Amino acid sequence: MLWPQSDGRHSPISAAVLTGAEVDQSAGLLTLRERQPFDLFATAPTLALLGANPMFGVLARDVVRRQAVEFGESFTVAGVEVELFRVSGKVPLYREGAGDLADDTAGVEVRRDGVRLVFIPGIAAMNDDIRVRLARADAVMIDGTLFTDDEMIRAGTGEKTGQRMGHMPLDGEDGTLEALAGLSNRRVLIHINNTNPILVDGSPERVRVEQAGWEVAEDGQEIVL
Amino acid sequence: MLWPQSDGRHSPISAAVLTGAEVDQSAGLLTLRERQPFDLFATAPTLALLGANPMFGVLARDVVRRQAVEFGESFTVAGVEVELFRVSGKVPLYREGAGDLADDTAGVEVRRDGVRLVFIPGIAAMNDDIRVRLARADAVMIDGTLFTDDEMIRAGTGEKTGQRMGHMPLDGEDGTLEALAGLSNRRVLIHINNTNPILVDGSPERVRVEQAGWEVAEDGQEIVL
Repeated sequence: MLWPQSDGRHSPISAAVLTGAEVDQSAGLLTLRERQPFDLFATAPTLALLGANPMFGVLARDVVRRQAVEFGESFTVAGVEVELFRVSGKVPLYREGAGDLADDTAGVEVRRDGVRLVFIPGIAAMNDDIRVRLARADAVMIDGTLFTDDEMIRAGTGEKTGQRMGHMPLDGEDGTLEALAGLSNRRVLIHINNTNPILVDGSPERVRVEQAGWEVAEDGQEIVL
Repeated sequence: MLWPQSDGRHSPISAAVLTGAEVDQSAGLLTLRERQPFDLFATAPTLALLGANPMFGVLARDVVRRQAVEFGESFTVAGVEVELFRVSGKVPLYREGAGDLADDTAGVEVRRDGVRLVFIPGIAAMNDDIRVRLARADAVMIDGTLFTDDEMIRAGTGEKTGQRMGHMPLDGEDGTLEALAGLSNRRVLIHINNTNPILVDGSPERVRVEQAGWEVAEDGQEIVL
């Protein structure tokens, strides 16, 4: 008998590192529920949130190995050194009001052969520790959700500000562009909401972030360091 | 300011009808969590399973209207008449062992202007009621998960039979091809596992289902009735 994918059914994914338990950070795991072994690294509170959700039981515990890691602890994933660090954010939307959870938002630093990448998909406020970490990285990928804090309200697509959602805006005195104006490494904006005008080629906002040395991430983009 | 999708942010989806609460039947809803109003139709036990899962709370109840429907009850969705009917199946994997749930697997019949489509993504055993329903349909889309009941075991990709997963095989005395040999309407196999040799063009199994008058569904396929 022919098997369509006799040697190809297994996914090449050997590990997943979570920066939190929000839907967009964790629900993709449900598509990996095929009894394929991999390691799942996250902080203990994030793993506890997934563990309390019966649906994530489809990632069988004898196959998908939960690995609780601490902020600041280095671990090795597929030959690269990885470290989670705490970032100001917020608890997942579906746990708001539960009142029993610390904010557990993480950034990730990935290191190999002296090269560093820092990845922060959500950040509510900058601080000096994170600024130092970003400055010494060879490449930075950071939260570019909104250009202005009240952008979704003005677009009529929501009632929440960026701050309310745990995202600092790009623009303004407290914005990411101002907070990181001193960086000169490779900088890529990610996690961009569909109200953000930097998605429009040639928009004044797009021109502004590009002139400040930032790239706007694209689907399928590859970065070689 | 330019908005990338000033008139296009809303999805055209006005309703979703669930045939159960298994991951592959329900997790896609999490990608619709953008405060876009739509109706969510399912049986009360299926809605209860989602309601018990905190993550589905991101489908805000004031925006996504839960509509509990009974097996055999007709309701209208976007101008078509829809009816759920009970199919032999199994409880979702993540609720196995919980012991507090009836099997609540559904098939769907869709009717408009005298044209009928029957959609059954999972079925563990055929019965006369379903056979009659299938026979009077203009088109049938039905569970083609496995060709043979022990196919995943022999392929080394799992330890479960089709029966154990709630899917009757295509082949054999108790298989779908035999059970529905009398049909002459349009028949499309869906929900096909990647071990199923009917996915291989020209395989003996593919030739066999095609000679029996079945189509093998393809991504993006459109069916006009």
